[in-house]
Amino acid sequence: MSIGNTFFKTAFSVDNVIFGFDQSLLKILLIKRAERPFKDEWALPGDLVYPDEHLDNAPKRVLKELTGLENVFLEQVATFGKVDRHPKGRVITVAYYSLVNSANLNPKAYSFAEDIAWHEVSKITTLAFDHKLIMDRCLETLKSKVRSQPIGFELLPQKFTLSELQDLYEAVLGKSLDKRNFRKKIMSLGVLLDQEEYQQGVAHRPAKLFQFDRLRYEDAKSRGFIFEI
Amino acid sequence: MSIGNTFFKTAFSVDNVIFGFDQSLLKILLIKRAERPFKDEWALPGDLVYPDEHLDNAPKRVLKELTGLENVFLEQVATFGKVDRHPKGRVITVAYYSLVNSANLNPKAYSFAEDIAWHEVSKITTLAFDHKLIMDRCLETLKSKVRSQPIGFELLPQKFTLSELQDLYEAVLGKSLDKRNFRKKIMSLGVLLDQEEYQQGVAHRPAKLFQFDRLRYEDAKSRGFIFEI
Repeated sequence: MSIGNTFFKTAFSVDNVIFGFDQSLLKILLIKRAERPFKDEWALPGDLVYPDEHLDNAPKRVLKELTGLENVFLEQVATFGKVDRHPKGRVITVAYYSLVNSANLNPKAYSFAEDIAWHEVSKITTLAFDHKLIMDRCLETLKSKVRSQPIGFELLPQKFTLSELQDLYEAVLGKSLDKRNFRKKIMSLGVLLDQEEYQQGVAHRPAKLFQFDRLRYEDAKSRGFIFEI
Repeated sequence: MSIGNTFFKTAFSVDNVIFGFDQSLLKILLIKRAERPFKDEWALPGDLVYPDEHLDNAPKRVLKELTGLENVFLEQVATFGKVDRHPKGRVITVAYYSLVNSANLNPKAYSFAEDIAWHEVSKITTLAFDHKLIMDRCLETLKSKVRSQPIGFELLPQKFTLSELQDLYEAVLGKSLDKRNFRKKIMSLGVLLDQEEYQQGVAHRPAKLFQFDRLRYEDAKSRGFIFEI
């Protein structure tokens, strides 16, 4: 029994979980499949990896081919390998994720995608293949990351109010946060610059504007500082 | 061009990174390969996964076949997929890791392992395949975990001194920690029970014994408490 006959007959794929933040909601970018299996169902933008393609290059290539999107930072989360997860044969899949400002992107459906759209994460009940499971796992990783690293600040305007920042955290964590505790905690991290500026042209009492200070964060981090919300 | 001809001709494997703590040192369990490629070189205990085997079951099966070890808790870390990482064809590999008390285990070399031994992590410069890279990546994950979760306590005696605990952290993090800061930080977490007991039969001044309080930790965690050293 040669190892070629026994082992070299499986395939592997990548699946991209692109989370988008827009108007206080956490969304995910999905394609509608024009091909079987799971024809006309919503799925993660993913595809098989070529046998001569570096795994690390595949998620970017696949995302571009299906959605036209480029320059999205993708991070590997986990690999899924149930025996029957793909109807066409044995395929294990490596999941990658990103968090983007969906308002700034203009994805289009290409290749075997017949449609593409942002869907509210909290309203998704089923997806093609085991993609719901993969989304849930990436969501857990995102929640844990956002609590321990200052990710997400690049999704806000350069100057933002504490309410806008809290909206972002509530969208990602999927729950309401106590306003007073949140403000106390975030200010105690010492990574927000008080701009001594206020919102303009709003109907309500103008709120103060802040800016994330990456230099101060990097400096504090190098001294062993822990970011935790 | 059928997708079978293009894609279903690769293989995947699992590699186990078993870190062991013993006598103040961080070690890793390696096998010496009795077969090509990399015959007579030290490697992670890993092997190809069968096309009809659930990925999640493979690391345990492979570890048992090569080392005889059972009941080791293995956690998936990352997947590695450079095109030429395996001389026999395209193989991507999924890395799993564990932290164990190596003094309590009795691994033996089976299957294509001709020898097996614990090696000091800090002294390893090369390994078969890309296993050094995989080890380094798992070591990064271990360091980050040990700082944010109370892992490792099960590697100490049930009642331990603060020096023993500091030895564990220093071995994993690979650096000396300031004794006073470490004690202050670890006590402030409120997860150590003061046993009001002291070491016995030691030549130096007996040190106080502590016990990790998992219930107190779980309770604090459920209230949003952050464990960070």
